[in-house]
Amino acid sequence: MKSVEIEIDHIGIAVPSLDADSYTFWKALGFQASPKIETVSDQKVKVGMLPLVNDAQIELLEPTSPDSPVAKFLAKKGPGIHHICLRVKDIRAVMAKLKDQGVKLIYDEPVKGAHNCLVTFVHPSSTGGVLVELSQPGERK
Amino acid sequence: MKSVEIEIDHIGIAVPSLDADSYTFWKALGFQASPKIETVSDQKVKVGMLPLVNDAQIELLEPTSPDSPVAKFLAKKGPGIHHICLRVKDIRAVMAKLKDQGVKLIYDEPVKGAHNCLVTFVHPSSTGGVLVELSQPGERK
Repeated sequence: MKSVEIEIDHIGIAVPSLDADSYTFWKALGFQASPKIETVSDQKVKVGMLPLVNDAQIELLEPTSPDSPVAKFLAKKGPGIHHICLRVKDIRAVMAKLKDQGVKLIYDEPVKGAHNCLVTFVHPSSTGGVLVELSQPGERK
Repeated sequence: MKSVEIEIDHIGIAVPSLDADSYTFWKALGFQASPKIETVSDQKVKVGMLPLVNDAQIELLEPTSPDSPVAKFLAKKGPGIHHICLRVKDIRAVMAKLKDQGVKLIYDEPVKGAHNCLVTFVHPSSTGGVLVELSQPGERK
């Protein structure tokens, strides 16, 4: 099957805190420095980014508020994979195509994600239980 | 931070069955054909592979036996992300390095994964709740 023009941008992992413990395994695997930290106000998270070689990242997510979606995830399921993010070229076009086919999106308009991306999320009820983020790269691209 | 020599190979998603339903979202996203199916006897799963453009895949996992790890996952957590797989060049070297640092591996020796890879799994207790597969590409690479 031919590949579609979609890439894995990152895998989001919920952690209680972006402390040394959250980072032990990744350090053992070869990451030398600590993750680069960014706050994403819209999602009420601090994000610690670990770059891999095929232009993808592991993102460790610490909630910054008890009503953060990641705080709710941690309370219900504990630490672990929170979402996967797929990188697309034109997020509005992809969103329109998905909506046409009955796929349920969490935001009807893209919102601002980490490092100035435009993002939305697909509801897990439309994906077979997976929280899928769609992201169009921001100005750094 | 400099990237380490590790890539995302695939994201494994547990589905009750590799039927048309399991594939609806991915088809809406742009995958035209059905996934290519492979059986991995060691893990008691049928794997449906959806290639992305940055040399990574979405892998839909259907258990082939009630005692498959994926069947147990589905019974406990329902459909969703089961594991992430990181591609490494020398799995035995990475395994030795991780063991030296106290990381708990599920197999002490690599086993055969999909498309002739050599794989092992890192126990979620060592990763912050994430089932991480490590994979060294097989003869197709």
